[in-house]
Amino acid sequence: MDENKEISLVEQALELLNEKKFAALRTLLEDQNPADINDIIDELSDEASVLLYRILPKELASEVFVEMDTDKQEFLINFFSDSQLKDVFDELYYDDTADIIEEMPANVVKRILKVVSPDMRKAVNELLKYPEDSAGSIMTTEFVRLKKSFTVADSLDLIRSVGVNKETIYTCYVTDEKNHLIGIVTAKDLLLSELTESVSEIMEENVISVNTLEDTEEIVLMFGKYDFLALPVVDKENRLVGIITVDDAIDVMQEETEEDFSKISAITPSDTEYLKTSVLKLWASRIPWLMILMISATFTGMIISKFESALAVLPILTAFIPMLMGTGGNAGSQASVTVIRGISLGQVEFRDFFKVLWKECRVSVLCGVVLGIAAIGKVMLVDNLLMGNPEVTIFVALVVGLTLFATIVSAKIIGCALPLLAKKTGLDPAVMASPLITTLIDTVSLLVYFYFASLILNI
Amino acid sequence: MDENKEISLVEQALELLNEKKFAALRTLLEDQNPADINDIIDELSDEASVLLYRILPKELASEVFVEMDTDKQEFLINFFSDSQLKDVFDELYYDDTADIIEEMPANVVKRILKVVSPDMRKAVNELLKYPEDSAGSIMTTEFVRLKKSFTVADSLDLIRSVGVNKETIYTCYVTDEKNHLIGIVTAKDLLLSELTESVSEIMEENVISVNTLEDTEEIVLMFGKYDFLALPVVDKENRLVGIITVDDAIDVMQEETEEDFSKISAITPSDTEYLKTSVLKLWASRIPWLMILMISATFTGMIISKFESALAVLPILTAFIPMLMGTGGNAGSQASVTVIRGISLGQVEFRDFFKVLWKECRVSVLCGVVLGIAAIGKVMLVDNLLMGNPEVTIFVALVVGLTLFATIVSAKIIGCALPLLAKKTGLDPAVMASPLITTLIDTVSLLVYFYFASLILNI
Repeated sequence: MDENKEISLVEQALELLNEKKFAALRTLLEDQNPADINDIIDELSDEASVLLYRILPKELASEVFVEMDTDKQEFLINFFSDSQLKDVFDELYYDDTADIIEEMPANVVKRILKVVSPDMRKAVNELLKYPEDSAGSIMTTEFVRLKKSFTVADSLDLIRSVGVNKETIYTCYVTDEKNHLIGIVTAKDLLLSELTESVSEIMEENVISVNTLEDTEEIVLMFGKYDFLALPVVDKENRLVGIITVDDAIDVMQEETEEDFSKISAITPSDTEYLKTSVLKLWASRIPWLMILMISATFTGMIISKFESALAVLPILTAFIPMLMGTGGNAGSQASVTVIRGISLGQVEFRDFFKVLWKECRVSVLCGVVLGIAAIGKVMLVDNLLMGNPEVTIFVALVVGLTLFATIVSAKIIGCALPLLAKKTGLDPAVMASPLITTLIDTVSLLVYFYFASLILNI
Repeated sequence: MDENKEISLVEQALELLNEKKFAALRTLLEDQNPADINDIIDELSDEASVLLYRILPKELASEVFVEMDTDKQEFLINFFSDSQLKDVFDELYYDDTADIIEEMPANVVKRILKVVSPDMRKAVNELLKYPEDSAGSIMTTEFVRLKKSFTVADSLDLIRSVGVNKETIYTCYVTDEKNHLIGIVTAKDLLLSELTESVSEIMEENVISVNTLEDTEEIVLMFGKYDFLALPVVDKENRLVGIITVDDAIDVMQEETEEDFSKISAITPSDTEYLKTSVLKLWASRIPWLMILMISATFTGMIISKFESALAVLPILTAFIPMLMGTGGNAGSQASVTVIRGISLGQVEFRDFFKVLWKECRVSVLCGVVLGIAAIGKVMLVDNLLMGNPEVTIFVALVVGLTLFATIVSAKIIGCALPLLAKKTGLDPAVMASPLITTLIDTVSLLVYFYFASLILNI
């Protein structure tokens, strides 16, 4: 992207707005992409946003409206007269209207539903019924519907007459009299076929579709796998009720990725940009997890207290605790994040449980042996020779090395097993992973440490 | 997705293959999506893959070939005669051929380049010159090129004659005599306009394009922002050299997401599926980071050794070390992952450094105060009252609470600052983050702990 050009568009617009050169501003903006115009609005106060919004041609204005933050949208809606509000929403696709309505307070929703056309009201009400994260909640009901008996010429005529209001004309859907989905025809098929050919001859009959209640996570994977531009959505009776377009799938893909990143770093997911999120909101999304993780660390504290006398005999043992627990945590999160991603991408399932376990066993033994030996070497070299600590004997090094080995093996096994078990029991693998895994690994590593210490060092 | 149907396709195919019912197998497969057929091949031995591959109609076979794992592709290529090899590659798009060639050993590359058409050889050689992760490396050179002087009818005729070999016909590109990109026309524009209209009237002139060397990460963001189906790629002189289609952008998006997940969990990224990766490869991707992190934990060990005498006076202090370091690590990774994602999504840049720092300061003070007080309460309640440990006084609780506060504040500041500094110095924010951040936070929290202990407890 031409970064400089983009910055200067925002700057140019702000300057023209400041100088009240509205005609020039309109000329500048009318050729721009709605997403770029929204970048300008992002920099403006609510009042200045209204001003800039009014300068835009009607259709473009609606396209920009869809791109805006919820807060800005709400401000503008409250500012609009009923007839202005109608103008905006008349230009929108049903699914965009439904998305906006979902984020608005009840009084605003009431106003919007009052001014929109009966068709839109009905469609939006239908769309709002679908559960969050279901295919129904992200589909659009505006697509091109063809009949089997149509010729290519009929189909092209239909596209010409209704196409302007459809979200895509590149994939058209063939349905029977009961609205069952029986085939798809792409615009490419239509353009490359003879005008007299019949739709039934050129349509693809082996259609891949999803049910209205299908999880959006699954849908995102299908777009990645099949390279679709759109995916049809059918109800329980295989009647076509909507389509999901690739741009909406990309949005969902990005949202879900961010959600997963939040979860594995112990943050409650939010869909606002970091710099736009208030300090209080950031705090609220982080403090519960820190609290849970802190309290769960009580166990490790209790174990250490219990072995206080052993540590008093050989205080140097304390020095290795952070390294042991840290390495255990790292080894565990390597395994857990790998498995969590595998589950997310549909590559790993619960039925692979023993396959995964066996794989992690072997990987962890390899890692454990290498790190265990390295640790023994390091302890003898650095702590014994270099720093000349007489407390550090080969036996101490052995305790550290053995504990490290055992910690890594158990960390990887806990790390790979818990997400799969979570998935099986219907919990979210990403959420349940980090706190529980960390606590378990820390506890195990300390217990093993003190066990080996008492065994080998007789304390 | 209809999970059961999908499983049964694989099972059906395997059964037919076992029973050597090849005609029935061909009938079953010829209507299937290439990605689904590849799911079947995934379950087969190399030899059985060849058998199944031969059953497929020629065009479908090539489509399936593109979907296969590199290992399978190489096996098949070595199995093919030169003329069979030519058949496969003649059906492929140039960019797919380039992608395959990139993964093959030199002798295989030589064979492929020998059999393909001179046009393809030339195009592929051009594509292979672009650096990895650049727009040039993921673009395709097969697109529809229109002239300004064309009418809509001319354009539709051109699409009919060349469209079948183009990766997309839905966005067509208008160039001048020197091949400069001057506009785009969508198939929708063409279908909804009068046949006599001229391309120059209906084309969109404000075209968003990228340079051949643009980072793919940036391109992925543009697809998310603008809802494009394709993005034109130009050279330094603004001459159109290729386009990037949305399906390729989605693939890059998914690869980059997985790379980022690997990096923040301290794993060297790989592009093979977990279950298909060998134990040795998994080990190799994990051991270097575990080693680095283990060695970096030496510092914390050294600090603890240094304060051994203090710990000997009041051994209970040891019990709180894991909790302090763990909470510090969690607080730090919350901040660092948030900032790393912000950078990846283009929402946070180095020029926001102080904005981010100020935000994290306030968030961390809020988190620190709450957790500090909670820790004091917990220590007094659980360790003092419940467990009746006489060593635990209000002063010990105070040391723990104050250290926790200071740890969280410094963890969040280190966590947000390092990724931004990494970005500024051209390092990868995701890679450099975890090891360095953890080590720094652990070191700081221990030093603070012993400082407060000596100050308040006089040890």
